[in-house]
Amino acid sequence: MNRPRPVEYANASPEVRSVFDDIKAVRKVAHVNNFWKYLAGDPALLKRNWEAQKAVLAPGALDRLVKELIYLAVSITNGCSYGIACHTALARKAGMTDAMFGELMAVIGMANQTNRFADGYRVPIDDDFND
Amino acid sequence: MNRPRPVEYANASPEVRSVFDDIKAVRKVAHVNNFWKYLAGDPALLKRNWEAQKAVLAPGALDRLVKELIYLAVSITNGCSYGIACHTALARKAGMTDAMFGELMAVIGMANQTNRFADGYRVPIDDDFND
Amino acid sequence: MNRPRPVEYANASPEVRSVFDDIKAVRKVAHVNNFWKYLAGDPALLKRNWEAQKAVLAPGALDRLVKELIYLAVSITNGCSYGIACHTALARKAGMTDAMFGELMAVIGMANQTNRFADGYRVPIDDDFND
Amino acid sequence: MNRPRPVEYANASPEVRSVFDDIKAVRKVAHVNNFWKYLAGDPALLKRNWEAQKAVLAPGALDRLVKELIYLAVSITNGCSYGIACHTALARKAGMTDAMFGELMAVIGMANQTNRFADGYRVPIDDDFND
Amino acid sequence: MNRPRPVEYANASPEVRSVFDDIKAVRKVAHVNNFWKYLAGDPALLKRNWEAQKAVLAPGALDRLVKELIYLAVSITNGCSYGIACHTALARKAGMTDAMFGELMAVIGMANQTNRFADGYRVPIDDDFND
Amino acid sequence: MNRPRPVEYANASPEVRSVFDDIKAVRKVAHVNNFWKYLAGDPALLKRNWEAQKAVLAPGALDRLVKELIYLAVSITNGCSYGIACHTALARKAGMTDAMFGELMAVIGMANQTNRFADGYRVPIDDDFND
Repeated sequence: MNRPRPVEYANASPEVRSVFDDIKAVRKVAHVNNFWKYLAGDPALLKRNWEAQKAVLAPGALDRLVKELIYLAVSITNGCSYGIACHTALARKAGMTDAMFGELMAVIGMANQTNRFADGYRVPIDDDFND
Repeated sequence: MNRPRPVEYANASPEVRSVFDDIKAVRKVAHVNNFWKYLAGDPALLKRNWEAQKAVLAPGALDRLVKELIYLAVSITNGCSYGIACHTALARKAGMTDAMFGELMAVIGMANQTNRFADGYRVPIDDDFND
Repeated sequence: MNRPRPVEYANASPEVRSVFDDIKAVRKVAHVNNFWKYLAGDPALLKRNWEAQKAVLAPGALDRLVKELIYLAVSITNGCSYGIACHTALARKAGMTDAMFGELMAVIGMANQTNRFADGYRVPIDDDFND
Repeated sequence: MNRPRPVEYANASPEVRSVFDDIKAVRKVAHVNNFWKYLAGDPALLKRNWEAQKAVLAPGALDRLVKELIYLAVSITNGCSYGIACHTALARKAGMTDAMFGELMAVIGMANQTNRFADGYRVPIDDDFND
Repeated sequence: MNRPRPVEYANASPEVRSVFDDIKAVRKVAHVNNFWKYLAGDPALLKRNWEAQKAVLAPGALDRLVKELIYLAVSITNGCSYGIACHTALARKAGMTDAMFGELMAVIGMANQTNRFADGYRVPIDDDFND
Repeated sequence: MNRPRPVEYANASPEVRSVFDDIKAVRKVAHVNNFWKYLAGDPALLKRNWEAQKAVLAPGALDRLVKELIYLAVSITNGCSYGIACHTALARKAGMTDAMFGELMAVIGMANQTNRFADGYRVPIDDDFND
């Protein structure tokens, strides 16, 4: 068996079910998305990651929409197709409009371009950026 | 001469000076930061990139602070030290507090972690993420 | 013809067949996997890369399983779907258990997260790491 | 203040000190390395990340040395200079010899090379890698 | 609606049609490729990006073939499957032979390998590379 | 000893000296650059990598200058500061002019930007790119 397999709710251990139940309650969804089913292959990792995500994505100094836009920007920069699909959906759910998505893409593209310019031209960091 | 050299205002062509002047006016700064001085090695690239940045970073559906947080998230994911230093400073100027920075870092770290989980577990994209 | 085409054993030159035969003998497999069929588009590259892989993956100070776990960690970090599929299979063959895979994923995720923390917080390298 | 600042033990809150004390006890070191001092800018992130690292790097199905080699492979692939310096030191401490380091580097280099070959030649995944 | 949708010529605004027409004229193609149809979701981004691509890919000190080889090298290093497919086709159209493609792949593989060696061995930059 | 150490010619084994001598002869340089001194920590890796580089960078269907531009494009995309410094110098030596460097940077920036657009907009590959 080479390809990792998902753990479905019906076959899950009580430990895994308890995490799945919490995900459904917090995210207000009828079933957990595939990511969690695969992570459940390692119940300790599943639990630790879910607890961390719950803390990290909760609204705080930044609201949920802004956090989802950042999550999506990282996923696009990493070229992770699952992350892109999942966090586009979560950003939409949190209120991302078409206009916001277009501007997000423009900023991501610009940053990826200028990061390479800065490295390629070996631009030294300005003193006042280090204060 | 192996290392690219910056173009200083005093030695710049009228074409380059005109871009530098616009950067100083739009960003309300006394001098342009090093990035632009190096890009000025190719005046056409300098002008095109500045015009694009001006359009991309102007407030729209997303405000300037959110755009800077996204820019910083990309720069950190790419490990670009100049981009990190520059856009930390620009994000601070746009209102990023310590609490926001901590939450930004937490989201970036989480996204970089879960992107690898999704790829490593080969998680298939959920149907409803593709609707 | 835009998409690269594989070279099948039946149509291969003697030079390419000789590499394919060696791969089958060393890896104890009935046929070579797709990677080698595509690389055979450039016979010199095929031969050079196979000789290098043979040397690099042979057990030495590190055993084959550990080398495959490292190979998989790199492939996941690069988001290379072929490399992930191929080296999950080779790691399984070399003895990777489910528990090992779970721990491997946890380390990969943690490293990708903390690499971004270190860059984003611009953490200076401790003196004793440079001794 | 643009550049993040470290939190030193002398100025740390009881919450942060308690994490620092645990790091020193678990890792058997006289002082915490810079990474933790910067992460302490966000005490909740510090605590969560340390607890996760403690769990992830503890010996299990994989021993500590193998985990450090994997951590280092990811850090090198990401080009993260702090991660490279820190986890070279931790791998040395866990028993990495010069011969192991040479073989580790060879595997990392090979994997980064063949990942690009697989993507560039658009190699389709073999059926048996998906079983 | 989670997945971005393409804008087809038949439904495009005059502004978008004008860009599509220019792409078809400059590239001498009967229809625009998918990339532009998706970018058209944000007409300002479409126009800006097309104008920039037209300028950047026009023959100058480097001819079109060399520019396409560079574009492909970046796309492969980023593991971007669309970019790889698109710029393999454009490089073919600009004259890339099988032999050139093989050598291109060999250089890309070597560069990705030695970049990791340089980072992993922490090789200091030679003085004469900085003159 | 955490930081890898270079092997200087004076202290090198006959096996390492022989590689160093070949590098100096082929590249027509008075001394080898730092990269090779560090790689010499693993003499088998040094020899294998040098032989491969000699084959890969020799003029063929692509000339040396084009190969160096590609090498530099990859190094910049990976953000590898040693690779950037080294291959800027080698490209200069092979004939890269200021105008070529400017156009190279523009293509690299554009490719890094549009790779993210293609991934973020999830653009499907056109049929004719797969023929």
